[in-house]
Amino acid sequence: MDKEDNTELNVIKNLSRIKHKIVILSGKGGVGKSTISANLAIGLSKKGYNVGLLDSDIHGPSIPKILGIEENKPDVTKTGMNPVIVNPKLKVMSMAFLLPETDTPIIWRGPMKMGVIKQFLGEVNWGDLDYLLIDLPPGTGDEPLSIAQLIPDIAGAIIVTTPQDVALVSVRKSVNFVKKMNIPVVGIVENMSGFTCPHCNKSVDIFKTGGGLKVSKDFLIPFLGKIPLDPQIVESGDSGETFIIENETTDSAKAFKDIIKNIEKHVKKKEVKYTK
Amino acid sequence: MDKEDNTELNVIKNLSRIKHKIVILSGKGGVGKSTISANLAIGLSKKGYNVGLLDSDIHGPSIPKILGIEENKPDVTKTGMNPVIVNPKLKVMSMAFLLPETDTPIIWRGPMKMGVIKQFLGEVNWGDLDYLLIDLPPGTGDEPLSIAQLIPDIAGAIIVTTPQDVALVSVRKSVNFVKKMNIPVVGIVENMSGFTCPHCNKSVDIFKTGGGLKVSKDFLIPFLGKIPLDPQIVESGDSGETFIIENETTDSAKAFKDIIKNIEKHVKKKEVKYTK
Repeated sequence: MDKEDNTELNVIKNLSRIKHKIVILSGKGGVGKSTISANLAIGLSKKGYNVGLLDSDIHGPSIPKILGIEENKPDVTKTGMNPVIVNPKLKVMSMAFLLPETDTPIIWRGPMKMGVIKQFLGEVNWGDLDYLLIDLPPGTGDEPLSIAQLIPDIAGAIIVTTPQDVALVSVRKSVNFVKKMNIPVVGIVENMSGFTCPHCNKSVDIFKTGGGLKVSKDFLIPFLGKIPLDPQIVESGDSGETFIIENETTDSAKAFKDIIKNIEKHVKKKEVKYTK
Repeated sequence: MDKEDNTELNVIKNLSRIKHKIVILSGKGGVGKSTISANLAIGLSKKGYNVGLLDSDIHGPSIPKILGIEENKPDVTKTGMNPVIVNPKLKVMSMAFLLPETDTPIIWRGPMKMGVIKQFLGEVNWGDLDYLLIDLPPGTGDEPLSIAQLIPDIAGAIIVTTPQDVALVSVRKSVNFVKKMNIPVVGIVENMSGFTCPHCNKSVDIFKTGGGLKVSKDFLIPFLGKIPLDPQIVESGDSGETFIIENETTDSAKAFKDIIKNIEKHVKKKEVKYTK
């Protein structure tokens, strides 16, 4: 019991040096949550903020692959683990760094997983950060719940969805999940929204478009932007080059920048509210 | 303890009337596992088999939406719950039927979830079936693990993936997961594999193509087929019309039929082995 209390205290103490803690979640997997988290983290760091990115997906940690830092290992020091440095402004921690080989499945029960997550929050030397982005596991189950409960004063939640109806059923669950947890919502991002054929330049709505906007209106929460389906994003993710840096002039990159502006606005509003 | 033993016994007894129990899994969410499960179930039932489909995703149950039976409710009888009838040869059970409203997130801890899954397996009147397809929750975590452990003599596992590298990291985990559980592998299905622009008929590899085949070669397991990215599949899933029936002549429908033939072959081989 005492040990447990110390762990929670460590988390609070360690995270108290971080100004804005933002969770990124989705009602279902495969909507591009990790790709979006990685690009937002890079984007915020390029704006001069000190950023941390925590990949809290225990079973499918893909952030290191997306950022091209899979071969890196965090240093273990006497005061805790040092996250992997992506650039002078961006630090990353992920379960993927701790696995012996990438093919190994993590068949762990709930309590074991929570132990690792607590370490990621309480014993990683994040230092002083402007932003910590936490890429939550998909869904509304044990893991996102437990992680959200562990983090004190989350500044906001970004909910990622794809536009088709089947996905929107899940995103509505996510919105209610976040509300139940009393986490303020930054807004909804609609990913894989529309597609322009690179051969004929005509548009095809493979996964439809506009569903995320509809949900944001239904729930009266902000809509942060649409990111089109783009083979370049897939290629960037696979090759470890983040999309936003490599393709600054594309529609997708512009969409990411707008989302970043919305995050800045959101935390600013929150700061004003707290100092009033 | 006695109660627990009875529950497990119920599961064994109830499932003993089912010839072939097939689990469908994926290393990550959003790869189309539920869409594929629904179409395979429809396809097998159209071939004259008695089929059951269990949507064991507690957090994002999407099978009823895909099959257009969201408004249905299973009857509760003295002998257990009756699954929802899709056609005379196909019965479905899903968490979605039991939720008060579709927006409600299920914020349950592990043991509560397992209680529901045990009911789905032990107390649903599946009757005599040729096939029970079990759509597992994505990943290699508590839920797929616990469910797989509950089901006696699983005939085989179908692993669904999308072709891009980031997804393939997860599918490799799934293959190892299945091996660790000693479940025979039916094979790998590559979903969202390639895309043909409906305007200019040229192909675009949005999520690339061929990754699933590569993994199947690496692990020496069968490759069941590629299903192209197709806006019609998305639309069918959203409107509750299953793709395979509605579009019998398309490449995607043909791919589904080949996969079904492979499943039949797999269980036949198994039957031969057992009778030897």
